Amino acid sequence: MLKTISNWIRGENSADPVEKGEARVEAKARHWYFNKRPKDVIEDDTLILKEEPLPALQDGEILIRTLYMSLDATNRVWMSDWDTYMDPLPTGSRMLGFILGEVAESRNPAFPQGSLVTGLGTWSDWIVTGGEGYASFPRPEGVPLADAFGILAVAGPTAYVGLIEIGKPKPGDTVVITAAAGAVGALVGQIAKLQGCRVVGVAGSDDKCRWLTDELGFDAAINYRKEDLLEALKREAPNGIDVQFENVGGEQLDAGLTLMNEGGRVVICGLISTYNSSGPVPGPYMFRNVIMKRLTIQGFVILDYAAHFPEYHAKLVEWMRSGELKYRLHIEDGLENAVDALRLLYTGGNNGKLMVRIGK
Amino acid sequence: MLKTISNWIRGENSADPVEKGEARVEAKARHWYFNKRPKDVIEDDTLILKEEPLPALQDGEILIRTLYMSLDATNRVWMSDWDTYMDPLPTGSRMLGFILGEVAESRNPAFPQGSLVTGLGTWSDWIVTGGEGYASFPRPEGVPLADAFGILAVAGPTAYVGLIEIGKPKPGDTVVITAAAGAVGALVGQIAKLQGCRVVGVAGSDDKCRWLTDELGFDAAINYRKEDLLEALKREAPNGIDVQFENVGGEQLDAGLTLMNEGGRVVICGLISTYNSSGPVPGPYMFRNVIMKRLTIQGFVILDYAAHFPEYHAKLVEWMRSGELKYRLHIEDGLENAVDALRLLYTGGNNGKLMVRIGK
Repeated sequence: MLKTISNWIRGENSADPVEKGEARVEAKARHWYFNKRPKDVIEDDTLILKEEPLPALQDGEILIRTLYMSLDATNRVWMSDWDTYMDPLPTGSRMLGFILGEVAESRNPAFPQGSLVTGLGTWSDWIVTGGEGYASFPRPEGVPLADAFGILAVAGPTAYVGLIEIGKPKPGDTVVITAAAGAVGALVGQIAKLQGCRVVGVAGSDDKCRWLTDELGFDAAINYRKEDLLEALKREAPNGIDVQFENVGGEQLDAGLTLMNEGGRVVICGLISTYNSSGPVPGPYMFRNVIMKRLTIQGFVILDYAAHFPEYHAKLVEWMRSGELKYRLHIEDGLENAVDALRLLYTGGNNGKLMVRIGK
Repeated sequence: MLKTISNWIRGENSADPVEKGEARVEAKARHWYFNKRPKDVIEDDTLILKEEPLPALQDGEILIRTLYMSLDATNRVWMSDWDTYMDPLPTGSRMLGFILGEVAESRNPAFPQGSLVTGLGTWSDWIVTGGEGYASFPRPEGVPLADAFGILAVAGPTAYVGLIEIGKPKPGDTVVITAAAGAVGALVGQIAKLQGCRVVGVAGSDDKCRWLTDELGFDAAINYRKEDLLEALKREAPNGIDVQFENVGGEQLDAGLTLMNEGGRVVICGLISTYNSSGPVPGPYMFRNVIMKRLTIQGFVILDYAAHFPEYHAKLVEWMRSGELKYRLHIEDGLENAVDALRLLYTGGNNGKLMVRIGK
C-alpha cells in the first residue's frame, strides 16, 4: 500500500482525478486549499476552504467519504519550501494529509462500495480518485476504528522503526525521548519499556509528565519548562543516555548529546523546534560529542519503510489488544476546524495523537 | 599493541616508570611538561621544557631513545578540558604523543636492545618505561622509517577506518573531504579513488589544491578561502555527495550537509574548526537534512579499532610500496622545536603529515 503512497508523494502520479469527468449536480465537496506558504505561524489565509461540485465517477474511479484525517508533524514539512524528501506542496493545490475513508460509490472493483480505504489524500470531505495511493484498510478486530487509524497509519510505524530498527535498544539501556507525550513519543517510551530499558520522557507540562509516568509507565518524566533540562537529565539518567529519540531538536537535542554514552545512538525522528524558523538554525552545539562519544546519528522518513508495515502493524496490534500499548487520541471535529487543529501542531497544544473527524 | 595503548590512555596503567629507580649520573633527559591549559592559542608557557636526570633501569624496564614524535589533531583534544574519550591531561604532567624510538638499553626481554618500539609516549628525548603501552615496530621492507611511522601510526589507519568501515563508499559515489591536504585527508582521497569514487578535496590554499589534483589524482579541489564553498561544491559534486569525510566542522560541514544525497554517510573524523573555541560552538545549521536526506552521521576514535591495525597496515603498506598511496611528510627537527610544530596544527601551516625528529 504505502509503496504507492510513496510514488504518489513523489509525483509519479500527478493526475488530479477530480478534474476528470463532469460535475455532478446532486453533491458538492469542500476542500482546503494551500493558499500561502506559512513563515512562523499558520495565518487565517494560509489555507482556504472552498466548496466545489463533485464530478461524476469515470470507470475505475471511486468516491471516498472521508472519516478521519491524521495531522502529523510532517504536514509542516510539506508546507515548507525546503529541499526535503518531497517537492514542496505548491500553493494553489489542495492540502495533503493521510486520511481514512469509506467508499461511498465505486466503479473500481479493487475498492468495493462500503469498504474502508486509507492513503495520502487531500483535506476534503469527499474525494474522487482512481485509487492510486490508496489501499484497503483491514480494520483489526478488537480495536476501534479511530484507534486503528490513529496509531497504525503513521505514529505507530514511526515509533517502531525509529526505536527498534535505528535506536537498537538493549535491555538495561537508558532511552530519552523528547516530545514524549506526542503521538510518536508516547508509543516509543512504552515500546522501550517492553524492551527492558530505563525510559525518561521530556514534555512541556506537569500534566503530560504525570500521564507519562503514572499511566504509561515511564521511569521518569521531565517538564522542560520548569527545570533546567540538562540538570534534570543528569538526575534521571544517572548512567548516561544510550538512545536519544529526538522529536524536537535545538536545546533539547543538545542536552541529550551532552550526556550520551559511548557508542550511543541518536535517532532523529523530528526537529520540530526548527520547523517554523525562517532564518538559519543554530546547533546542535554539543556536536563534537559525535566524535568524543563515538555516536551514530541517523535520520529517517517513515515512508521509506512502507514495505515492512505489515510486520510492524502485526506487532503493534498485538500490543494494542493486550493493553501493553496505551495511547490517547486528540480528535477535533469537523473539516472546517482542521486549520485550528493544525495550529496545535505548532504550539504543542494537543493531548495525544491529533486527528480530525469528518462527517457524522 | 594498541589495545595496551588504549588501556594506558584510559589510565589503567598509571604508574610513571620514570619515577622508579634512582637517578643515573651519566645521562639526562629533556621532557616537555604541560604547564597551562591553552584557550585559543598555544602560548609560550603552555608547555615548558625541563631537563632531568635519567633514573637507572629496574628489572623489566627499557630506555628508549626517541627518534620521531607524531603530531596529530588529537593532541589538541588531549590538552583541552572537555569531557572527551580520555581524561584531560593534567597540567604538570609530561606532554603525551605517539612516538617511535630505539631501545638503547633493555632489562626487558620483550624489547631487545637496538629494536624499534612505538606507542603513546611522552614528549621526551629519552624515556624510561616498563614497556606498557609500547609495542615492537616491525619496520616494513621497502618503506623508509619516517614514512612507515608517519603513515602507519595514526593517519593511515584513521583514513582507512573512516572511509572504508564507516563511509562505505561504492564505485561511482562522490566523496568530499575537508582538510583534504592534511595527513589523513590526503590518504582518504587516494583510497577513495582506489574504490572508484569521484573525489573532491577542500583545502586552504591553491598550492594544496594543485597538489591534490595534480599529484594525488583527486578529481577536483576547492580552495575554500578563495571561493564560496557551497557554490564550488555544487559545481564539483554535480550529482550530490554520498560520503562527506569531515575533518573540519562548522561552515564546511554545513556546506556538505546541504548537498548530501539520500542515504548519505557523514564520517566525523575531526572538528578542528571547533577545537580551539572556548564558548559554545554553533551549527551544523543544516542539521535538518539528517532527516530530509536520511543521513547517518558517525564519529569514531581510531584507538577503538586497534585490534584491526594489522589488517589495515597490510593494505596500507601494499599501496605505499606500489606507489598507489602518495604522501608528504612535514618533519620539524629537534625536541626543542616541538611547540612551534604544535602551533602548525592550529594554523594549518603544515604541509603533510606533521612529525618532529629527535636526536641525530
